[in-house]
Amino acid sequence: MQPEGVLLIGQQAVNGGQAAIRAVNPATGEVLEPVYHGGSGSEVEQACRLAEAAFDSYRETSLEARAAFLEAIATEIEDLGDALIERAIMETGLPRARLEGERGRTCGQLRLFASVVRAGEWLDLRHDPALPDRTPLPRPDLRQRHIAVGPVAVFGASNFPLAFSVAGGDTASALAAGCPVVVKGHAAHLGTSEFVGRAIQRAVAKCGLPEGVFSLLFGAGNEIGEMLVSDPRVKAVGFTGSRRGGTALTAIAQTRAEPIPVYAEMSSINPVFLLPEALSVRGGAIAEGFVASLNMGAGQFCTNPGLVLGVKSGALEAFVATAGSAVEASAPQTMLTSAIHSAYEASVEALAKHPKVREIARGQAGDSACQCRAGLFAVDAEDFIADKSLQNEVFGSTSLVVECRDIDEMARVAERLEGQLTATLQMDDDDLATAKALLPVLERKAGRILANGWPTGVEVSHAMVHGGPYPATTDPRTTSVGSAAIRRFLRPVCYQNLPAGLLPEPLQDGNPLAVTRLVDGQREG
Amino acid sequence: MQPEGVLLIGQQAVNGGQAAIRAVNPATGEVLEPVYHGGSGSEVEQACRLAEAAFDSYRETSLEARAAFLEAIATEIEDLGDALIERAIMETGLPRARLEGERGRTCGQLRLFASVVRAGEWLDLRHDPALPDRTPLPRPDLRQRHIAVGPVAVFGASNFPLAFSVAGGDTASALAAGCPVVVKGHAAHLGTSEFVGRAIQRAVAKCGLPEGVFSLLFGAGNEIGEMLVSDPRVKAVGFTGSRRGGTALTAIAQTRAEPIPVYAEMSSINPVFLLPEALSVRGGAIAEGFVASLNMGAGQFCTNPGLVLGVKSGALEAFVATAGSAVEASAPQTMLTSAIHSAYEASVEALAKHPKVREIARGQAGDSACQCRAGLFAVDAEDFIADKSLQNEVFGSTSLVVECRDIDEMARVAERLEGQLTATLQMDDDDLATAKALLPVLERKAGRILANGWPTGVEVSHAMVHGGPYPATTDPRTTSVGSAAIRRFLRPVCYQNLPAGLLPEPLQDGNPLAVTRLVDGQREG
Repeated sequence: MQPEGVLLIGQQAVNGGQAAIRAVNPATGEVLEPVYHGGSGSEVEQACRLAEAAFDSYRETSLEARAAFLEAIATEIEDLGDALIERAIMETGLPRARLEGERGRTCGQLRLFASVVRAGEWLDLRHDPALPDRTPLPRPDLRQRHIAVGPVAVFGASNFPLAFSVAGGDTASALAAGCPVVVKGHAAHLGTSEFVGRAIQRAVAKCGLPEGVFSLLFGAGNEIGEMLVSDPRVKAVGFTGSRRGGTALTAIAQTRAEPIPVYAEMSSINPVFLLPEALSVRGGAIAEGFVASLNMGAGQFCTNPGLVLGVKSGALEAFVATAGSAVEASAPQTMLTSAIHSAYEASVEALAKHPKVREIARGQAGDSACQCRAGLFAVDAEDFIADKSLQNEVFGSTSLVVECRDIDEMARVAERLEGQLTATLQMDDDDLATAKALLPVLERKAGRILANGWPTGVEVSHAMVHGGPYPATTDPRTTSVGSAAIRRFLRPVCYQNLPAGLLPEPLQDGNPLAVTRLVDGQREG
Repeated sequence: MQPEGVLLIGQQAVNGGQAAIRAVNPATGEVLEPVYHGGSGSEVEQACRLAEAAFDSYRETSLEARAAFLEAIATEIEDLGDALIERAIMETGLPRARLEGERGRTCGQLRLFASVVRAGEWLDLRHDPALPDRTPLPRPDLRQRHIAVGPVAVFGASNFPLAFSVAGGDTASALAAGCPVVVKGHAAHLGTSEFVGRAIQRAVAKCGLPEGVFSLLFGAGNEIGEMLVSDPRVKAVGFTGSRRGGTALTAIAQTRAEPIPVYAEMSSINPVFLLPEALSVRGGAIAEGFVASLNMGAGQFCTNPGLVLGVKSGALEAFVATAGSAVEASAPQTMLTSAIHSAYEASVEALAKHPKVREIARGQAGDSACQCRAGLFAVDAEDFIADKSLQNEVFGSTSLVVECRDIDEMARVAERLEGQLTATLQMDDDDLATAKALLPVLERKAGRILANGWPTGVEVSHAMVHGGPYPATTDPRTTSVGSAAIRRFLRPVCYQNLPAGLLPEPLQDGNPLAVTRLVDGQREG
């Protein structure tokens, strides 16, 4: 099985007519076959037209039919077998075990959303029965459900070629909500994207769904994505990537005749607070855990611990020394693309040249073009506070230690931080009071707060929040990982005094879907 | 009891130093005492500083304490007695019964949110217990709750001086969510606003809450509102008013260093579909009901039926004739402000002069400056489709009948409509198939769909949706009326492996608040 270099529009495979795009093996520099040609406005038009045509019918599929579709996608992805993994290794340089794990996560995510669809909580059914005898005015019969917002544009991310790409979290949650999806695949893993896109295409056909439920486009530059976000039939956007990319798409979405929400997950430096007791009791172990988290996947995670805060002390010096040694011993790792590698090098260079920043350690240098050296730097808290650019994300395995005079200064630094995906406390029992004082600040700054763990590794479950205040995301009211993500693509509709024959099935008397409802404000079922 | 012409900043009453603002009795033209002076940047600064200082403690008040606060506000408003109603009559020209009803609605709304706060569903508690033995990786303990987003700026609306103003729906839902509120009061009902603001101020003090939980500002122009939306401590905005005002505030909110959500409810023409069987069987009664709804409150409702669609037929002609007679017989009504009256006159004039629009009837003319004449106009469907300006809201009691060749053309008009708060079907049993075919379009266009009723009159309950796609609102994922509005001011936070001593109370083992939770995806309690 080989990818064929095509765009997928509904059930068709189409050759794009625009500029050539080729995947490159970042480990070897080898240019990979086949060549892809980017789509044009006509492919965007076709995909959006099909998505719109599919919308009213797809959003009214039964809970069971929609859940079965999500499960069918998972099965089709698994049926791609090793060809998918091998292609992904070639296109990303990521190790096999990581990609196999990521495939498991991707399929697990689709099956989680299948279970969420079946449970039907997402419908958020509400019924306020009529009160015909109420004075001074009777109350009408009012029923509410949530419906899908419309076709959704999803942008594949480079750093998770499966779990945040063609059939990743955004696609799974949008399809679960009842939205057709048009994916703009990432140019860094074209063949992987085509394989997964064909798996979805097959699932659409096998489940007898309208073909417009899914399309996959590619494009060399930003144009095709911009056309997609501008298309009036698209009603929401899911994006994971750079702050520049996310804000650019958001600006386009906001200046449309009908503005639409963009769920962009963009940048986060994931501060780790080393509280004094934990630091003094087990600073060495924390340092080892920290560098392991920092190096995971060459640091190419949105939850990479890019900032560490501690109070100046012998214990902090020891932590820095141990972490520095571990960074020095860090083997070079292949980054996802040469563009990411260059950006990483430039960011590290900027840190190294910063007059207030000290270099603690650099990891081992590699011998191929896309290999990165880990890095550890340090800065005084007051210098960190004074220069906001030190909060810029360095995408890769480099972190900055912020040395604070005391706990109060650490709290002041926390208060100055931009929005984050995560904030981590390394704490022992005797740090509890300090942690309690910090918690309200961290709640205001981050979507997820961890104790004595590391932010890398994002569980796909019901209670997960992978989100946070700007610039971590463009919408802190949601999550991009976990079952609550389905809400991003829903909106409420109220039905007043509709005759039984016209009421949508989930709202009919007797609760035919047997899902939980709020009746007169009381939860039932 | 007389209003004193002051701004309320926390527990202080402050004289603004800027341009004078005075309320005017629209029925008489009389300029009302006292004079108010608008606030400046320093009052905005003070109000926002207090709001931020209050935030962490207010958002952690117990369910009971917060509910009691909302109830205390209701009681304080009731305790204002007739002075409030008399002032509101003077400032708005609205009849006493309407204002007494609106007061009841406002207090009922506060008490509804008190019950919502107590029930605790809004916390959306989730718990995925640790799975230490899971392979290949253990699962950490993950718990989620929703917390308040931060201080909220609320803009009072002119057309509901109580229910959408200082202690209106936006304030009630934001306070319920745990957000301090800074209100920019509407210049049309300054004294009413001050009375209600003082009631809230007293409730804050009686409940022992930090003073920054509530402030009330006034300003002559747009500046004070713009400063408020620009303030980095404000994290969300609630607005009801014109499309121009809502989009201007949204643009400011989006260009902040940290963009924030604006919930603006802006404009809607609330299409009413006269289906053929209903029209032929009871067109006369429908016409009477329609004009009654059109004239309610001088048409100054966001849910006013500004558009009526029917298929050309003798029945439609009869409907138009009956409705026309009722409009002709309509007594003049005092509008809220001379600005609203002028805008209404200009909008009606534009309709009357439109080459494709026919005037059916005008109501009786009044003899005072702010009195409006009802109006009924008609246009062919194809002309309506061809000119988007015919979809502009006419704020007041004027409506446009769109005459369609057949049901297909009616569906085409529906498909071309902008987003709406409501869509209404007048239908009988034999119209069911037609209604079913229209329903998916209406669901995509509107937040509430009614059968055989009128869109004016918005129930404050759990199943209500007062919202809809742009330009009805800037965020169709929410409602501004009803208990679900609390969600607009919340965001999820996940807590991973937090020690028991650090976990927020609602998330502690044993579910101490005894509220419903999702445990491993299963609903409990």
